[in-house]
Amino acid sequence: MNDAVSIAAAVREGKISAVEVTQAALQRIAQRQELNCFTAITDESALHDAKRIDDAIAQGNHPGSLAGVPFAVKNLYDVAGITTLAGAKINAENPPATHDATLVTKLKQAGAILVGTLNMDEYAYGFVTENAHYGATHNPHDFNRVAGGSSGGSAAAVAANLVPLSLGTDTNGSIRVPAAFCGIFGLKPTYGRLSRAGVALFSSSLDHVGPFARSVRDIATVFDLLQGYDDRDPVCTQKSPELCLPQLDRGIENLRIAVAGDYFTKGAEPEAITVVEQVAQALDVTEYITLPEAHRARAAAFIITSCEGANLHMEKLRSRPQDFDFATRDRFLAGALIPSHWYIQAQRFRRWFRDRVKEVFQNIDIILAPTTPCFAPLIGQKTMMLAGEEILIRPHLGLFTQPLSFIGLPVLSVPIHRPGSLPLGVQLIAAPYNEAIILRVAAVLEAKGIVSTHTS
Amino acid sequence: MNDAVSIAAAVREGKISAVEVTQAALQRIAQRQELNCFTAITDESALHDAKRIDDAIAQGNHPGSLAGVPFAVKNLYDVAGITTLAGAKINAENPPATHDATLVTKLKQAGAILVGTLNMDEYAYGFVTENAHYGATHNPHDFNRVAGGSSGGSAAAVAANLVPLSLGTDTNGSIRVPAAFCGIFGLKPTYGRLSRAGVALFSSSLDHVGPFARSVRDIATVFDLLQGYDDRDPVCTQKSPELCLPQLDRGIENLRIAVAGDYFTKGAEPEAITVVEQVAQALDVTEYITLPEAHRARAAAFIITSCEGANLHMEKLRSRPQDFDFATRDRFLAGALIPSHWYIQAQRFRRWFRDRVKEVFQNIDIILAPTTPCFAPLIGQKTMMLAGEEILIRPHLGLFTQPLSFIGLPVLSVPIHRPGSLPLGVQLIAAPYNEAIILRVAAVLEAKGIVSTHTS
Repeated sequence: MNDAVSIAAAVREGKISAVEVTQAALQRIAQRQELNCFTAITDESALHDAKRIDDAIAQGNHPGSLAGVPFAVKNLYDVAGITTLAGAKINAENPPATHDATLVTKLKQAGAILVGTLNMDEYAYGFVTENAHYGATHNPHDFNRVAGGSSGGSAAAVAANLVPLSLGTDTNGSIRVPAAFCGIFGLKPTYGRLSRAGVALFSSSLDHVGPFARSVRDIATVFDLLQGYDDRDPVCTQKSPELCLPQLDRGIENLRIAVAGDYFTKGAEPEAITVVEQVAQALDVTEYITLPEAHRARAAAFIITSCEGANLHMEKLRSRPQDFDFATRDRFLAGALIPSHWYIQAQRFRRWFRDRVKEVFQNIDIILAPTTPCFAPLIGQKTMMLAGEEILIRPHLGLFTQPLSFIGLPVLSVPIHRPGSLPLGVQLIAAPYNEAIILRVAAVLEAKGIVSTHTS
Repeated sequence: MNDAVSIAAAVREGKISAVEVTQAALQRIAQRQELNCFTAITDESALHDAKRIDDAIAQGNHPGSLAGVPFAVKNLYDVAGITTLAGAKINAENPPATHDATLVTKLKQAGAILVGTLNMDEYAYGFVTENAHYGATHNPHDFNRVAGGSSGGSAAAVAANLVPLSLGTDTNGSIRVPAAFCGIFGLKPTYGRLSRAGVALFSSSLDHVGPFARSVRDIATVFDLLQGYDDRDPVCTQKSPELCLPQLDRGIENLRIAVAGDYFTKGAEPEAITVVEQVAQALDVTEYITLPEAHRARAAAFIITSCEGANLHMEKLRSRPQDFDFATRDRFLAGALIPSHWYIQAQRFRRWFRDRVKEVFQNIDIILAPTTPCFAPLIGQKTMMLAGEEILIRPHLGLFTQPLSFIGLPVLSVPIHRPGSLPLGVQLIAAPYNEAIILRVAAVLEAKGIVSTHTS
């Protein structure tokens, strides 16, 4: 197995050096340049950091739980010395960041080696990573298809085996959608559980940061490393983290699991629904539950995001609209014109929906739902037929992630590969701060061989 | 002295019965009907409640700290058996409330006698109480002038000596403005410190409830009675109330007091500024401080209020606009058309302003500012000359209250009467939860004879 935990063990045991691991990663990155995952490669500092790990091991010091593990971060995370492009041409004029984002610091302190920054949709507003300025990121499983977005580079880099770990952000599905399309694990944690300090925001009350990885063990390990209070982030207030890794083998006996019915079974390709049924069957789950007014939840999340995004970028939208990606510009401008009444009503509905979903979680521990309504579409594809209707692809990819985004729930997208088919994802959804339960279910599914990553 | 505390003492000591006090109040209310303070008079239940107080005293039971004190509440508070009109024709179709608002219950439990409900601007949106449906409330000091609003009935009833106590609400100045115009004390407490359960909202994050009275002792007594946690109001979360009454005589030595400069000294009639200087002089205060960007704070509060008010009443604005008061309708419709960007920007500014004002309160305990920029205008008057400019009266009356409304600060408007002149008010402003300090300053000013109520 080539997951992060295995690599770190091999490095610690002296089976391979951190420098060798890093050189191999940099070589793979160079060989797969055509995927367009990276916006910057930090080869020099990476090799320097790897050398320090090897020196520490040689001196008998503990080099950290992720010693020598290469990782990369969405170019929305500050990395000292690199400009935080956020997928925008406009941001290329900004000076390099002066400090690492808190999560980057935490991974480095655990011995992980930062090898670069990753491509994304402009200002994190999109599900495709077809960036007008920096090009499209390609899906490692099919070069002609999108990697998903907005954390497309983060997902593709892990799926292409360039790095075992990466970080992304998820406002309406930007971790989960690319995780599903690329066939890997992507975790959107509970809102506020991981620090966003040093990460550019989009729609603050919906913005989450989280990891991509190729095994449940890696997700749990990284999540435990990253969680905890950070006085640099006013939203991140958790005082005593509950660690997930030690709970991973507890199994799922006594867990109440149900499938999201109604809204979450419609408007999708049959395969997207089938993989959920397959997971349900493997877990002996037969119950279906309803998240009420899910279509309104999606609409409300749409409205809040476009209004807040427009507000955030208003000055530049006014002074230099021509420098935006055409796809984000149009949606920001539309957001700027939405009446305050819609925005306030969306926030009002949000409180109602949060209360209803809280009630659902009184009787249920985990809800299963598809991650995307379809396989990764072709790069450049504008519309598709879904359930007999021609729909616009870009806004539609978040059909099943958007309704769950704005009430802070933790969600893991687990990868399902079926022979001869592109990957799809299933969302494991829990009440806030219940990541440990999600990971126990994922571990069982992984052990049964139902979910697994394929690199290609 | 005829304040509530004196009345309760006389009732407890058997010098007068609660029934006699109540009958006298009902008689005064009947004699001054032309003031149009009341929307309903609860004479029957009031006399019944008064009888119970007298019976309790006869049996040697303690009848409560406000035994036999008549009070009335803005018709925005639920009173069981009475329709909560909220100043609206539309709401007259609603059934009577089934329960008293929490604050009404608390006053009744303390032995106070509810004698009726009070006139207001429609949906609490106004500073004049010239209600298109229920008529204007007249200023007891000059029949041709407004009482202020939106809690105009509440202020006028106390100033006209109809009741010694009343309750109102304050979103942008709706307690403070009428308190100033009517020459009495009006307290807008810290946001969330008093329960709003059973009170109709307007713009929830700005809506405060609070008392009117004729002495500092009464304000302190009633405030202490009313404060504390209420599980019916999610915003009211204070667990251990700090009582103000016991602190009233501590004086003001060591308190750091300053006058609000710049914005708060402009655009007003000279007298409105002079009374602040008079208070400052009485307190030996010479320091001026600046609340930065106060004009933007007012604009932001304006935007948030009109957007949220429009959202709250949207269904009726759409289906029956003709049934609204023309003055509120126009502002709600304008609010409905404000782009979300303005609203979000106003909320963003609000956080910034809250932080700046917090910094100011690091070095200052109390800030002095005028309550209104002018004396009570004439009923029907549309414009006035102020500082050489012709301005619309209605929106302008909140010039000095609006910038302080949306960051939750406690503010007491204290009354200043100068011979041959209408009353004016001075705002005593403190950091959140510092009502006790405000009341200490007010007590000193009252003892010095600088502030005092006149009934007429």
